[in-house]
Amino acid sequence: MKKPLILVTNDDGIAAPGIRSLVESAKEIGEVIVVAPDSPQSGMGHAITIDDPIRLRKVQVFEGIESYECSGTPVDCVKLAKNIVLKDREIDLCVSGVNHGSNASINIIYSGTLSAAMEASLEHIPSIGFSLLDYSFDADFEASRPYVKALMRYVLQHGMVDGSLLNVNIPSLPTSQIKGMRVCRQADARWVEEFQEARDPRGQPYYWLTGRFVNDDYEEDTDIWALQNGYISVVPSMHDLTNYRAMKGIKDINQITIPT
Amino acid sequence: MKKPLILVTNDDGIAAPGIRSLVESAKEIGEVIVVAPDSPQSGMGHAITIDDPIRLRKVQVFEGIESYECSGTPVDCVKLAKNIVLKDREIDLCVSGVNHGSNASINIIYSGTLSAAMEASLEHIPSIGFSLLDYSFDADFEASRPYVKALMRYVLQHGMVDGSLLNVNIPSLPTSQIKGMRVCRQADARWVEEFQEARDPRGQPYYWLTGRFVNDDYEEDTDIWALQNGYISVVPSMHDLTNYRAMKGIKDINQITIPT
Repeated sequence: MKKPLILVTNDDGIAAPGIRSLVESAKEIGEVIVVAPDSPQSGMGHAITIDDPIRLRKVQVFEGIESYECSGTPVDCVKLAKNIVLKDREIDLCVSGVNHGSNASINIIYSGTLSAAMEASLEHIPSIGFSLLDYSFDADFEASRPYVKALMRYVLQHGMVDGSLLNVNIPSLPTSQIKGMRVCRQADARWVEEFQEARDPRGQPYYWLTGRFVNDDYEEDTDIWALQNGYISVVPSMHDLTNYRAMKGIKDINQITIPT
Repeated sequence: MKKPLILVTNDDGIAAPGIRSLVESAKEIGEVIVVAPDSPQSGMGHAITIDDPIRLRKVQVFEGIESYECSGTPVDCVKLAKNIVLKDREIDLCVSGVNHGSNASINIIYSGTLSAAMEASLEHIPSIGFSLLDYSFDADFEASRPYVKALMRYVLQHGMVDGSLLNVNIPSLPTSQIKGMRVCRQADARWVEEFQEARDPRGQPYYWLTGRFVNDDYEEDTDIWALQNGYISVVPSMHDLTNYRAMKGIKDINQITIPT
Protein backbone atom coordinates (compact mmCIF):
# COMPACT_ATOMS: atom_id res chain seq x y z
CA MET A 1 0.00 0.00 0.00
CA LYS A 2 1.20 3.49 -0.84
CA LYS A 3 2.25 5.50 2.17
CA PRO A 4 0.21 8.68 2.76
CA LEU A 5 1.96 11.97 1.97
CA ILE A 6 2.11 14.18 5.06
CA LEU A 7 3.04 17.87 4.95
CA VAL A 8 4.49 19.16 8.23
CA THR A 9 4.73 22.84 9.12
CA ASN A 10 4.61 25.09 12.19
CA ASP A 11 4.93 28.69 13.35
CA ASP A 12 7.81 28.43 15.83
CA GLY A 13 10.25 27.88 12.97
CA ILE A 14 11.90 24.82 11.46
CA ALA A 15 14.47 24.57 14.29
CA ALA A 16 11.95 24.35 17.14
CA PRO A 17 11.74 21.12 19.21
CA GLY A 18 7.97 20.94 18.64
CA ILE A 19 8.20 20.39 14.90
CA ARG A 20 10.93 17.79 15.44
CA SER A 21 8.57 15.82 17.65
CA LEU A 22 5.82 16.11 15.03
CA VAL A 23 8.15 14.94 12.25
CA GLU A 24 9.14 11.92 14.37
CA SER A 25 5.47 11.02 14.83
CA ALA A 26 4.53 11.65 11.19
CA LYS A 27 7.33 9.56 9.73
CA GLU A 28 5.96 6.48 11.51
CA ILE A 29 2.76 6.95 9.55
CA GLY A 30 3.67 8.26 6.11
CA GLU A 31 6.08 9.94 3.76
CA VAL A 32 6.94 13.29 5.30
CA ILE A 33 7.78 16.61 3.61
CA VAL A 34 8.57 19.63 5.78
CA VAL A 35 8.01 23.23 4.65
CA ALA A 36 8.33 25.53 7.66
CA PRO A 37 9.27 29.13 8.45
CA ASP A 38 12.98 29.94 8.76
CA SER A 39 12.26 32.03 11.88
CA PRO A 40 9.64 32.18 14.63
CA GLN A 41 6.26 33.37 13.33
CA SER A 42 4.09 33.20 16.44
CA GLY A 43 1.10 35.51 16.42
CA MET A 44 1.13 35.84 12.63
CA GLY A 45 -2.48 34.68 12.36
CA HIS A 46 -3.56 34.20 8.75
CA ALA A 47 -1.01 36.71 7.42
CA ILE A 48 0.31 36.23 3.89
CA THR A 49 3.27 37.89 2.17
CA ILE A 50 2.03 40.09 -0.66
CA ASP A 51 4.45 42.99 -0.95
CA ASP A 52 7.71 41.06 -0.70
CA PRO A 53 9.31 38.13 -2.48
CA ILE A 54 9.43 34.87 -0.55
CA ARG A 55 12.50 32.65 -0.27
CA LEU A 56 12.31 28.88 -0.19
CA ARG A 57 15.48 26.92 0.59
CA LYS A 58 16.10 23.18 0.75
CA VAL A 59 17.68 22.35 4.11
CA GLN A 60 18.97 19.35 6.04
CA VAL A 61 17.36 19.46 9.45
CA PHE A 62 15.67 16.09 9.98
CA GLU A 63 17.46 12.78 9.24
CA GLY A 64 16.21 11.42 5.91
CA ILE A 65 13.31 13.90 5.56
CA GLU A 66 12.99 16.26 2.59
CA SER A 67 12.77 19.70 4.18
CA TYR A 68 12.47 23.33 3.11
CA GLU A 69 12.62 26.54 5.07
CA CYS A 70 10.63 29.53 3.91
CA SER A 71 11.08 33.23 4.64
CA GLY A 72 7.33 33.81 4.77
CA THR A 73 4.49 33.18 7.19
CA PRO A 74 3.04 29.76 8.11
CA VAL A 75 0.24 30.31 5.57
CA ASP A 76 2.85 31.12 2.90
CA CYS A 77 4.56 27.80 3.76
CA VAL A 78 1.41 25.84 2.98
CA LYS A 79 0.81 27.75 -0.25
CA LEU A 80 4.42 27.17 -1.40
CA ALA A 81 4.32 23.51 -0.36
CA LYS A 82 1.21 22.89 -2.42
CA ASN A 83 2.12 24.98 -5.46
CA ILE A 84 5.90 24.68 -5.73
CA VAL A 85 7.34 21.85 -3.63
CA LEU A 86 4.56 19.28 -4.12
CA LYS A 87 3.14 20.70 -7.33
CA ASP A 88 2.00 17.48 -8.95
CA ARG A 89 1.32 15.42 -5.85
CA GLU A 90 -1.72 15.00 -3.67
CA ILE A 91 -1.15 15.84 -0.01
CA ASP A 92 -3.06 13.37 2.19
CA LEU A 93 -2.65 15.21 5.47
CA CYS A 94 -1.21 18.48 6.73
CA VAL A 95 -0.09 18.72 10.35
CA SER A 96 1.10 21.93 11.97
CA GLY A 97 3.00 22.28 15.23
CA VAL A 98 3.54 20.95 17.76
CA ASN A 99 3.22 24.52 18.99
CA HIS A 100 5.06 25.58 22.12
CA GLY A 101 2.06 26.96 24.02
CA SER A 102 -1.72 26.86 23.96
CA ASN A 103 -3.84 27.62 20.92
CA ALA A 104 -7.10 26.82 22.69
CA SER A 105 -10.13 29.09 22.62
CA ILE A 106 -9.63 32.52 21.01
CA ASN A 107 -5.91 31.86 20.50
CA ILE A 108 -6.85 30.13 17.26
CA ILE A 109 -7.35 33.47 15.49
CA TYR A 110 -3.88 34.79 16.40
CA SER A 111 -2.08 31.53 15.82
CA GLY A 112 0.18 30.93 12.84
CA THR A 113 0.12 27.20 13.66
CA LEU A 114 -3.64 27.00 13.27
CA SER A 115 -3.77 29.36 10.31
CA ALA A 116 -1.39 27.05 8.44
CA ALA A 117 -3.74 24.14 9.14
CA MET A 118 -6.70 26.27 8.09
CA GLU A 119 -5.00 27.20 4.82
CA ALA A 120 -4.54 23.48 4.09
CA SER A 121 -8.23 22.89 4.86
CA LEU A 122 -9.13 25.59 2.31
CA GLU A 123 -7.26 23.48 -0.23
CA HIS A 124 -9.37 20.49 0.79
CA ILE A 125 -6.40 18.87 2.54
CA PRO A 126 -7.37 17.19 5.84
CA SER A 127 -5.39 19.03 8.50
CA ILE A 128 -4.63 19.21 12.20
CA GLY A 129 -2.97 21.87 14.32
CA PHE A 130 -1.26 20.53 17.47
CA SER A 131 -0.25 22.59 20.50
CA LEU A 132 1.23 21.67 23.86
CA LEU A 133 0.41 23.78 26.89
CA ASP A 134 4.04 24.54 27.65
CA TYR A 135 5.74 27.61 26.20
CA SER A 136 9.27 26.56 27.13
CA PHE A 137 11.91 25.43 24.64
CA ASP A 138 12.46 22.31 26.74
CA ALA A 139 8.80 21.32 26.75
CA ASP A 140 8.29 17.56 26.89
CA PHE A 141 6.48 16.50 23.72
CA GLU A 142 7.05 12.79 24.36
CA ALA A 143 3.92 12.14 26.44
CA SER A 144 1.62 13.43 23.72
CA ARG A 145 3.08 11.41 20.87
CA PRO A 146 0.75 8.37 21.07
CA TYR A 147 -2.25 10.73 20.86
CA VAL A 148 -0.73 12.79 18.07
CA LYS A 149 -0.23 9.62 16.04
CA ALA A 150 -3.71 8.30 16.87
CA LEU A 151 -5.28 11.52 15.59
CA MET A 152 -3.22 11.51 12.39
CA ARG A 153 -4.37 7.95 11.74
CA TYR A 154 -7.98 8.87 12.52
CA VAL A 155 -8.02 11.78 10.09
CA LEU A 156 -6.22 9.80 7.37
CA GLN A 157 -8.81 7.05 7.75
CA HIS A 158 -11.97 9.17 8.08
CA GLY A 159 -11.05 12.38 6.25
CA MET A 160 -12.48 15.68 7.46
CA VAL A 161 -15.72 17.47 6.78
CA ASP A 162 -14.74 19.73 3.90
CA GLY A 163 -13.54 23.09 5.11
CA SER A 164 -12.80 21.87 8.62
CA LEU A 165 -9.59 21.32 10.50
CA LEU A 166 -8.89 20.01 13.99
CA ASN A 167 -7.52 22.33 16.65
CA VAL A 168 -5.84 19.97 19.10
CA ASN A 169 -4.43 21.18 22.42
CA ILE A 170 -2.54 18.93 24.78
CA PRO A 171 -2.14 19.43 28.54
CA SER A 172 1.42 19.36 29.80
CA LEU A 173 1.09 16.08 31.70
CA PRO A 174 2.76 12.67 31.70
CA THR A 175 0.99 10.13 29.44
CA SER A 176 -0.37 8.29 32.46
CA GLN A 177 -2.20 11.41 33.65
CA ILE A 178 -3.77 12.30 30.30
CA LYS A 179 -7.38 11.12 30.58
CA GLY A 180 -8.00 10.86 26.85
CA MET A 181 -9.36 13.10 24.11
CA ARG A 182 -12.49 15.22 24.09
CA VAL A 183 -14.27 16.70 21.09
CA CYS A 184 -15.38 20.15 22.20
CA ARG A 185 -16.10 23.72 21.23
CA GLN A 186 -13.92 26.81 21.42
CA ALA A 187 -14.40 28.47 24.83
CA ASP A 188 -15.53 32.10 24.71
CA ALA A 189 -12.41 33.50 26.38
CA ARG A 190 -10.20 36.44 25.49
CA TRP A 191 -6.97 38.28 26.22
CA VAL A 192 -6.87 41.33 28.42
CA GLU A 193 -3.96 43.42 27.24
CA GLU A 194 -1.44 45.04 29.50
CA PHE A 195 0.94 46.98 27.29
CA GLN A 196 4.34 47.55 28.80
CA GLU A 197 5.35 51.14 28.11
CA ALA A 198 9.04 52.05 28.08
CA ARG A 199 11.45 54.61 26.62
CA ASP A 200 14.14 53.95 24.03
CA PRO A 201 17.70 55.38 24.41
CA ARG A 202 16.51 58.58 22.69
CA GLY A 203 13.68 59.01 25.19
CA GLN A 204 10.93 58.06 22.74
CA PRO A 205 8.11 55.84 24.02
CA TYR A 206 7.41 52.35 22.80
CA TYR A 207 4.93 49.67 23.76
CA TRP A 208 5.33 45.98 24.18
CA LEU A 209 2.29 43.75 23.95
CA THR A 210 1.59 41.57 26.95
CA GLY A 211 -1.57 40.38 28.58
CA ARG A 212 -3.41 37.73 30.47
CA PHE A 213 -5.85 35.14 29.25
CA VAL A 214 -9.29 35.49 30.82
CA ASN A 215 -11.94 32.80 30.60
CA ASP A 216 -15.44 33.22 31.99
CA ASP A 217 -16.91 30.38 29.94
CA TYR A 218 -17.05 27.49 32.42
CA GLU A 219 -19.18 25.03 30.44
CA GLU A 220 -18.01 21.43 30.29
CA ASP A 221 -18.23 21.30 26.49
CA THR A 222 -15.37 23.77 26.00
CA ASP A 223 -11.72 23.19 25.17
CA ILE A 224 -10.60 25.10 28.26
CA TRP A 225 -12.62 22.80 30.52
CA ALA A 226 -11.19 19.73 28.81
CA LEU A 227 -7.61 20.94 29.25
CA GLN A 228 -8.12 21.93 32.88
CA ASN A 229 -9.47 18.46 33.55
CA GLY A 230 -6.64 16.47 32.02
CA TYR A 231 -8.06 15.86 28.55
CA ILE A 232 -6.64 16.63 25.14
CA SER A 233 -9.09 19.06 23.50
CA VAL A 234 -10.14 18.47 19.89
CA VAL A 235 -12.14 21.31 18.31
CA PRO A 236 -13.35 20.99 14.73
CA SER A 237 -12.81 24.49 13.35
CA MET A 238 -13.65 26.20 10.09
CA HIS A 239 -13.04 29.21 7.89
CA ASP A 240 -16.68 30.14 7.30
CA LEU A 241 -16.97 33.04 9.74
CA THR A 242 -20.62 33.81 8.94
CA ASN A 243 -22.66 34.20 12.11
CA TYR A 244 -25.78 32.48 10.78
CA ARG A 245 -27.68 33.01 14.02
CA ALA A 246 -27.15 36.77 13.77
CA MET A 247 -28.48 37.06 10.20
CA LYS A 248 -32.17 37.14 11.03
CA GLY A 249 -31.82 39.87 13.63
CA ILE A 250 -30.29 42.34 11.17
CA LYS A 251 -32.47 41.59 8.14
CA ASP A 252 -33.96 45.08 8.34
CA ILE A 253 -30.69 46.38 6.91
CA ASN A 254 -32.07 45.10 3.59
CA GLN A 255 -34.83 47.72 3.87
CA ILE A 256 -32.57 50.74 4.38
CA THR A 257 -32.96 53.07 1.39
CA ILE A 258 -30.88 56.07 0.46
CA PRO A 259 -32.84 59.06 -0.91
CA THR A 260 -31.45 60.02 -4.32
CA MET B 1 -26.96 64.28 23.66
CA LYS B 2 -23.39 63.04 23.90
CA LYS B 3 -21.83 62.26 20.55
CA PRO B 4 -20.81 58.61 20.10
CA LEU B 5 -17.07 57.88 20.17
CA ILE B 6 -15.94 56.26 16.92
CA LEU B 7 -12.56 54.58 16.47
CA VAL B 8 -11.37 54.52 12.85
CA THR B 9 -8.62 52.22 11.57
CA ASN B 10 -7.65 50.37 8.38
CA ASP B 11 -4.97 48.17 6.85
CA ASP B 12 -3.90 50.27 3.85
CA GLY B 13 -2.20 52.76 6.18
CA ILE B 14 -3.16 56.13 7.59
CA ALA B 15 -2.35 57.96 4.33
CA ALA B 16 -4.68 55.92 2.10
CA PRO B 17 -7.68 57.66 0.46
CA GLY B 18 -10.05 54.99 1.80
CA ILE B 19 -9.54 55.87 5.46
CA ARG B 20 -9.91 59.57 4.62
CA SER B 21 -13.34 58.85 3.16
CA LEU B 22 -14.27 56.83 6.24
CA VAL B 23 -13.13 59.61 8.58
CA GLU B 24 -15.25 62.11 6.59
CA SER B 25 -18.30 59.89 7.02
CA ALA B 26 -17.64 59.13 10.69
CA LYS B 27 -17.19 62.74 11.73
CA GLU B 28 -20.73 63.53 10.59
CA ILE B 29 -21.94 60.99 13.12
CA GLY B 30 -19.69 61.18 16.15
CA GLU B 31 -16.42 62.11 17.76
CA VAL B 32 -13.66 60.45 15.76
CA ILE B 33 -10.30 59.10 16.91
CA VAL B 34 -7.96 57.53 14.34
CA VAL B 35 -5.37 54.89 15.18
CA ALA B 36 -4.07 53.35 11.97
CA PRO B 37 -0.92 51.64 10.66
CA ASP B 38 1.93 53.88 9.49
CA SER B 39 2.43 51.68 6.41
CA PRO B 40 0.32 49.33 4.27
CA GLN B 41 -0.63 46.13 6.12
CA SER B 42 -2.74 44.29 3.58
CA GLY B 43 -2.86 40.54 4.00
CA MET B 44 -1.81 40.71 7.64
CA GLY B 45 -4.85 38.78 8.78
CA HIS B 46 -5.12 38.63 12.55
CA ALA B 47 -1.37 39.07 13.07
CA ILE B 48 -0.18 40.72 16.27
CA THR B 49 3.28 42.03 17.17
CA ILE B 50 4.77 39.95 19.98
CA ASP B 51 8.52 39.91 19.47
CA ASP B 52 9.03 43.62 18.72
CA PRO B 53 8.18 46.89 20.41
CA ILE B 54 5.39 48.91 18.83
CA ARG B 55 5.56 52.64 18.13
CA LEU B 56 2.59 54.93 18.47
CA ARG B 57 2.91 58.53 17.23
CA LYS B 58 0.44 61.39 17.29
CA VAL B 59 0.11 62.79 13.77
CA GLN B 60 -1.78 65.52 11.93
CA VAL B 61 -3.41 63.91 8.93
CA PHE B 62 -7.11 64.78 9.10
CA GLU B 63 -8.36 68.33 9.76
CA GLY B 64 -9.45 68.58 13.39
CA ILE B 65 -9.30 64.85 14.11
CA GLU B 66 -7.10 63.35 16.84
CA SER B 67 -4.96 60.82 15.00
CA TYR B 68 -2.19 58.33 15.74
CA GLU B 69 -0.07 56.17 13.49
CA CYS B 70 1.18 52.85 14.75
CA SER B 71 4.10 50.72 13.58
CA GLY B 72 2.17 47.51 14.19
CA THR B 73 -0.56 45.52 12.49
CA PRO B 74 -4.23 46.56 12.24
CA VAL B 75 -5.03 44.34 15.23
CA ASP B 76 -2.24 46.04 17.21
CA CYS B 77 -3.86 49.40 16.34
CA VAL B 78 -7.14 48.38 17.95
CA LYS B 79 -5.39 47.00 21.03
CA LEU B 80 -3.37 50.21 21.45
CA ALA B 81 -6.38 52.41 20.82
CA LYS B 82 -8.35 50.66 23.52
CA ASN B 83 -5.59 50.28 26.09
CA ILE B 84 -3.41 53.35 25.60
CA VAL B 85 -5.10 56.07 23.53
CA LEU B 86 -8.66 55.68 24.83
CA LYS B 87 -7.79 54.01 28.11
CA ASP B 88 -10.59 55.39 30.24
CA ARG B 89 -13.23 55.92 27.59
CA GLU B 90 -15.88 53.68 26.14
CA ILE B 91 -15.66 53.20 22.36
CA ASP B 92 -19.18 53.14 20.88
CA LEU B 93 -18.21 51.96 17.41
CA CYS B 94 -15.11 50.79 15.57
CA VAL B 95 -14.99 51.14 11.78
CA SER B 96 -12.18 49.80 9.65
CA GLY B 97 -11.41 50.69 6.04
CA VAL B 98 -12.61 51.72 3.61
CA ASN B 99 -10.38 49.04 2.12
CA HIS B 100 -9.10 49.44 -1.41
CA GLY B 101 -10.30 46.09 -2.77
CA SER B 102 -12.72 43.31 -1.91
CA ASN B 103 -12.83 41.51 1.42
CA ALA B 104 -15.82 39.42 0.47
CA SER B 105 -15.98 35.64 0.96
CA ILE B 106 -12.74 33.96 2.07
CA ASN B 107 -10.81 37.25 1.85
CA ILE B 108 -12.02 37.96 5.38
CA ILE B 109 -9.45 35.59 6.87
CA TYR B 110 -6.48 37.26 5.12
CA SER B 111 -7.70 40.80 5.64
CA GLY B 112 -6.13 43.20 8.12
CA THR B 113 -9.15 45.48 7.70
CA LEU B 114 -11.57 42.82 8.90
CA SER B 115 -9.23 41.47 11.57
CA ALA B 116 -9.11 44.95 13.12
CA ALA B 117 -12.91 44.98 13.19
CA MET B 118 -12.92 41.47 14.64
CA GLU B 119 -10.48 42.48 17.36
CA ALA B 120 -12.85 45.30 18.34
CA SER B 121 -15.75 42.83 18.43
CA LEU B 122 -13.73 40.65 20.83
CA GLU B 123 -13.63 43.67 23.11
CA HIS B 124 -17.42 43.92 22.87
CA ILE B 125 -17.16 47.04 20.69
CA PRO B 126 -19.72 47.07 17.85
CA SER B 127 -17.67 47.11 14.67
CA ILE B 128 -17.84 47.22 10.90
CA GLY B 129 -15.24 46.54 8.22
CA PHE B 130 -15.85 48.39 4.94
CA SER B 131 -14.30 47.51 1.58
CA LEU B 132 -14.79 48.92 -1.92
CA LEU B 133 -14.34 46.62 -4.90
CA ASP B 134 -11.66 48.80 -6.49
CA TYR B 135 -7.98 48.23 -5.75
CA SER B 136 -6.79 51.50 -7.28
CA PHE B 137 -5.46 54.45 -5.30
CA ASP B 138 -7.93 56.70 -7.15
CA ALA B 139 -10.96 54.57 -6.28
CA ASP B 140 -14.15 56.62 -5.95
CA PHE B 141 -15.40 56.23 -2.37
CA GLU B 142 -17.98 59.01 -2.77
CA ALA B 143 -20.86 56.87 -4.07
CA SER B 144 -20.73 54.57 -1.08
CA ARG B 145 -20.77 57.24 1.62
CA PRO B 146 -24.54 57.43 2.21
CA TYR B 147 -24.58 53.67 2.79
CA VAL B 148 -21.50 53.76 4.99
CA LYS B 149 -23.16 56.39 7.17
CA ALA B 150 -26.47 54.52 7.23
CA LEU B 151 -24.75 51.38 8.49
CA MET B 152 -22.81 53.25 11.16
CA ARG B 153 -26.09 54.75 12.39
CA TYR B 154 -27.79 51.35 12.29
CA VAL B 155 -25.10 49.67 14.38
CA LEU B 156 -24.93 52.58 16.85
CA GLN B 157 -28.67 52.36 17.29
CA HIS B 158 -29.11 48.57 17.42
CA GLY B 159 -25.73 47.37 18.69
CA MET B 160 -24.39 44.05 17.50
CA VAL B 161 -24.91 40.50 18.64
CA ASP B 162 -22.01 40.05 21.02
CA GLY B 163 -18.96 38.66 19.29
CA SER B 164 -20.16 39.66 15.84
CA LEU B 165 -18.96 42.28 13.40
CA LEU B 166 -20.25 43.31 9.99
CA ASN B 167 -18.20 42.57 6.88
CA VAL B 168 -19.45 45.14 4.37
CA ASN B 169 -18.36 45.08 0.73
CA ILE B 170 -19.39 47.75 -1.76
CA PRO B 171 -19.56 47.35 -5.54
CA SER B 172 -17.66 49.98 -7.50
CA LEU B 173 -20.75 51.66 -8.97
CA PRO B 174 -22.29 55.14 -8.98
CA THR B 175 -24.83 55.66 -6.16
CA SER B 176 -27.71 55.54 -8.64
CA GLN B 177 -26.73 52.03 -9.72
CA ILE B 178 -26.34 50.58 -6.22
CA LYS B 179 -29.52 48.59 -5.62
CA GLY B 180 -29.31 48.66 -1.84
CA MET B 181 -27.88 46.44 0.90
CA ARG B 182 -28.23 42.71 1.39
CA VAL B 183 -27.58 40.70 4.52
CA CYS B 184 -25.91 37.52 3.31
CA ARG B 185 -23.44 34.75 4.08
CA GLN B 186 -19.79 34.38 3.13
CA ALA B 187 -19.55 32.61 -0.25
CA ASP B 188 -17.49 29.42 -0.26
CA ALA B 189 -14.85 30.70 -2.68
CA ARG B 190 -11.06 30.55 -2.57
CA TRP B 191 -7.82 31.71 -4.13
CA VAL B 192 -5.91 29.59 -6.59
CA GLU B 193 -2.28 30.55 -6.26
CA GLU B 194 0.03 31.19 -9.15
CA PHE B 195 3.44 31.95 -7.67
CA GLN B 196 5.67 33.99 -9.91
CA GLU B 197 9.15 32.49 -9.79
CA ALA B 198 12.14 34.69 -10.63
CA ARG B 199 15.88 35.00 -9.96
CA ASP B 200 17.60 37.69 -7.94
CA PRO B 201 20.82 39.39 -9.19
CA ARG B 202 22.84 36.58 -7.58
CA GLY B 203 20.89 33.93 -9.47
CA GLN B 204 18.96 32.73 -6.40
CA PRO B 205 15.28 31.92 -6.85
CA TYR B 206 12.48 33.78 -5.17
CA TYR B 207 8.71 33.55 -5.33
CA TRP B 208 6.07 36.20 -5.46
CA LEU B 209 2.54 35.37 -4.39
CA THR B 210 -0.16 35.97 -6.95
CA GLY B 211 -3.37 34.20 -7.76
CA ARG B 212 -6.91 34.35 -8.95
CA PHE B 213 -10.14 34.28 -6.99
CA VAL B 214 -12.32 31.32 -7.85
CA ASN B 215 -15.96 31.08 -6.81
CA ASP B 216 -18.11 28.04 -7.48
CA ASP B 217 -20.74 28.97 -4.91
CA TYR B 218 -23.52 30.48 -7.00
CA GLU B 219 -26.28 30.67 -4.38
CA GLU B 220 -28.25 33.91 -4.13
CA ASP B 221 -27.70 34.20 -0.37
CA THR B 222 -23.94 34.81 -0.74
CA ASP B 223 -21.94 38.01 -0.64
CA ILE B 224 -20.44 37.33 -4.05
CA TRP B 225 -23.92 37.08 -5.62
CA ALA B 226 -25.00 40.32 -3.94
CA LEU B 227 -21.96 42.19 -5.23
CA GLN B 228 -22.29 40.81 -8.74
CA ASN B 229 -25.88 41.97 -8.78
CA GLY B 230 -25.33 45.55 -7.71
CA TYR B 231 -25.92 45.19 -3.96
CA ILE B 232 -23.75 46.11 -1.02
CA SER B 233 -23.09 42.85 0.86
CA VAL B 234 -23.44 42.79 4.65
CA VAL B 235 -22.19 39.59 6.32
CA PRO B 236 -22.44 39.23 10.10
CA SER B 237 -19.17 37.50 10.97
CA MET B 238 -17.72 36.06 14.16
CA HIS B 239 -14.63 34.79 15.88
CA ASP B 240 -16.05 31.49 17.12
CA LEU B 241 -14.55 29.16 14.52
CA THR B 242 -16.08 25.99 15.99
CA ASN B 243 -17.70 23.88 13.30
CA TYR B 244 -20.67 22.76 15.41
CA ARG B 245 -22.13 20.68 12.60
CA ALA B 246 -18.92 18.66 12.38
CA MET B 247 -18.78 17.82 16.08
CA LYS B 248 -21.18 14.90 16.06
CA GLY B 249 -19.42 13.15 13.18
CA ILE B 250 -16.11 12.94 15.02
CA LYS B 251 -17.40 12.07 18.51
CA ASP B 252 -15.73 8.65 18.27
CA ILE B 253 -12.41 10.44 18.86
CA ASN B 254 -13.54 10.54 22.51
CA GLN B 255 -13.32 6.74 22.57
CA ILE B 256 -9.75 6.45 21.31
CA THR B 257 -7.62 4.94 24.05
CA ILE B 258 -3.85 4.66 24.24
CA PRO B 259 -2.53 1.38 25.68
CA THR B 260 -0.20 2.15 28.61
